[in-house]
Amino acid sequence: MNPLLEIFSQGEEIIRGQITDTNATWLSQHSVQLGFNVVRHTAVGDKLADLVLLLQEIAQRADCCLCTGGLGPTTDDLTAEAVAKAFNLPLLFDDTAYAQIKQFFAHRGRAMPESNSKQAWLPTGAERLDNDMGTAPGFAVKFQRCWFAFMPGVPSEMQHMYLAKILPSLTGRFQLHPARLITLKTIGMGESAIQECIAGVTIPHDVQLGFRAAEDVQVKLLFPFAYSELMLRQLVADIAECLAACVYAIDGLGEESGDLVATLDKLMLSGGHRLAVLETASQGLLAAKCLGMEWLLSASYIQSLPRVATQFSLVPMTDDIIAFAKIIARHLQQQQGADFALVQLYAEQRDILCDKNQSIIVHTVLLAGDMYQHETHSIGGTLQRKQKQAALMSLDVLRRYFLTRKPNTSTQSQ
Amino acid sequence: MNPLLEIFSQGEEIIRGQITDTNATWLSQHSVQLGFNVVRHTAVGDKLADLVLLLQEIAQRADCCLCTGGLGPTTDDLTAEAVAKAFNLPLLFDDTAYAQIKQFFAHRGRAMPESNSKQAWLPTGAERLDNDMGTAPGFAVKFQRCWFAFMPGVPSEMQHMYLAKILPSLTGRFQLHPARLITLKTIGMGESAIQECIAGVTIPHDVQLGFRAAEDVQVKLLFPFAYSELMLRQLVADIAECLAACVYAIDGLGEESGDLVATLDKLMLSGGHRLAVLETASQGLLAAKCLGMEWLLSASYIQSLPRVATQFSLVPMTDDIIAFAKIIARHLQQQQGADFALVQLYAEQRDILCDKNQSIIVHTVLLAGDMYQHETHSIGGTLQRKQKQAALMSLDVLRRYFLTRKPNTSTQSQ
Repeated sequence: MNPLLEIFSQGEEIIRGQITDTNATWLSQHSVQLGFNVVRHTAVGDKLADLVLLLQEIAQRADCCLCTGGLGPTTDDLTAEAVAKAFNLPLLFDDTAYAQIKQFFAHRGRAMPESNSKQAWLPTGAERLDNDMGTAPGFAVKFQRCWFAFMPGVPSEMQHMYLAKILPSLTGRFQLHPARLITLKTIGMGESAIQECIAGVTIPHDVQLGFRAAEDVQVKLLFPFAYSELMLRQLVADIAECLAACVYAIDGLGEESGDLVATLDKLMLSGGHRLAVLETASQGLLAAKCLGMEWLLSASYIQSLPRVATQFSLVPMTDDIIAFAKIIARHLQQQQGADFALVQLYAEQRDILCDKNQSIIVHTVLLAGDMYQHETHSIGGTLQRKQKQAALMSLDVLRRYFLTRKPNTSTQSQ
Repeated sequence: MNPLLEIFSQGEEIIRGQITDTNATWLSQHSVQLGFNVVRHTAVGDKLADLVLLLQEIAQRADCCLCTGGLGPTTDDLTAEAVAKAFNLPLLFDDTAYAQIKQFFAHRGRAMPESNSKQAWLPTGAERLDNDMGTAPGFAVKFQRCWFAFMPGVPSEMQHMYLAKILPSLTGRFQLHPARLITLKTIGMGESAIQECIAGVTIPHDVQLGFRAAEDVQVKLLFPFAYSELMLRQLVADIAECLAACVYAIDGLGEESGDLVATLDKLMLSGGHRLAVLETASQGLLAAKCLGMEWLLSASYIQSLPRVATQFSLVPMTDDIIAFAKIIARHLQQQQGADFALVQLYAEQRDILCDKNQSIIVHTVLLAGDMYQHETHSIGGTLQRKQKQAALMSLDVLRRYFLTRKPNTSTQSQ
């Protein structure tokens, strides 16, 4: 059984919503990788009574607690005082800490403000954790079942202290058996559809299956420590087979794969391809997602189908929008000197685009060399959702083209 | 005394650090503005026992609790079950919720997966909160001293449900004495520059001054409940005067102003203008930011300066990039039949664009009718930061054009 770990953040700015608690995210990631069972995040403000109560609760509940914030020089920085009170460990003046704080200011040619001397008072018996990046020393104490480490709230100072001072303590103090997370990233199927699709695969009782739907849908498998590599790879392969072409990347088996654009980047670079894009429903977002990709030569957003036609001196063909998109793709390819041209069109009027209760039909045509490939998607929801999904679906046509180019796979040419 | 409010988030992804809990931030901001005393954020994963215990704790501690996550169709979505267990309110099948979920899929031309029927089971006596944006209905229950509202974890669905369904309940149920927040939104000055600029304005001791730097820089003034309207407006006016043309919107004085694009929308619509854009450094993001704006006829991203020249059958003029941008703006205006044309160019090579330690010089030319206006900005930082800042700075040239068009202001024509 992995030790239970909690994250505790002190700060009015956090609980008032002025800043987002990214420290909790960072510490959680590191703790999970290390093999802790992270069970709770809590953030409270600068009320002493709340802090004291929370520390006492955690001391009974968790084996380890990583704490950030409240170590500063001002009166609303209450962590050391709260620890002293909660665990009955009166504050003691730490000469070494005081000398370090003085030195911090001396190095910068400044006198130490009197308020900073407060930071040299640490709970009785606490282990001081030196801060190489700022004035606030951290400290660690064990109380009841829980080992607490207190760090500054400034992310750069916190991260440095964690890596330099706390990580070595954690691996020394705890017997850790890290689980292994495998993530299958998919495009083209909803969360429920994926669940049904993989229902035939038996998930062993000690493997946790989870889903995360953002723009793409991710299938997550959490394997216990020292799980058989062979069985792990077989299970991942079984699920990947069910989801087939929807899987665009798998994380956790070796090097991390990144998002869809990172996948496309590898494919485009390996073939030395160059792409020109015409986008409509995704309104610039397709280009924006490909930030910094050298293979994207140009991407034009044009507001309406009639305007697209005018731009290419054509008569719009609303009865056969795919044929129309193919003609435009050919023009675009030649005009931009690209071997690949991607054209995204939809025929609906503006009021349908803006209506969250109505869907638009988005057609994407890819011209790759002299081969056409196309896909059609119905996209509903708000204007923002339509924009995001249109960008993703059209980019995915490009990825799927490369799948058809694999050996032993027939090529779809139309 | 303002009522105590807690935020509770359910999600393994949050406590494992796979995503950051931005819902807690968003809900805290709104709750504080409304007059709640936000005292704690807690996030737990999908362990039923943890959830049950936490709900029981909160029911004794807070007057109100806003909860997100765990309402999905999958087996790891446990919120309704946890509420049923914690408060002894067995789950009941809600016919209306079921009909709504079915309709959600019907609207999208898909059959409802069987797993989604789980979302129609709500705790006995709970008030159903309809979800206009997704399949998961929310619900609200009162237990002991605390009124709980449960919302989906997907931020867009959560925000919509909060604004449409929960906000009206909160203002009806609680006696709130909100502080009043005024936000001056600026573009074109850094945080330190703004601080120096307004240093001469006396801020009364009971008014809180704060800053938030994201893409723009926001100056925030928090006034206590029932503060004199006259004195409030005078202080805001004094600060706005110091910051002059950098202020693009002020929130909190009447109707909300939204972001820069919302400000532009009003200006463009009132003049019946139409805009064509050529963007380079912002790579599609300028267009993406103007999502749904009818006045944006087209926006082309072109990768490099030589490619821009080729596209317009011109020879690039790297020695006078502004003159070159003006020529292109004229072409674009005619080609697209727009009265306004905005051209963004930079001359640096790709390696400088991608290097976070180097800056690029971004030139933006606006051709409005037959009048040119231009601005030049040095933009540093990561590729992502350069993209965002370039989009913002170029759009801001459009806003500043309208400032010069105000009566009694001389027009800059070059």
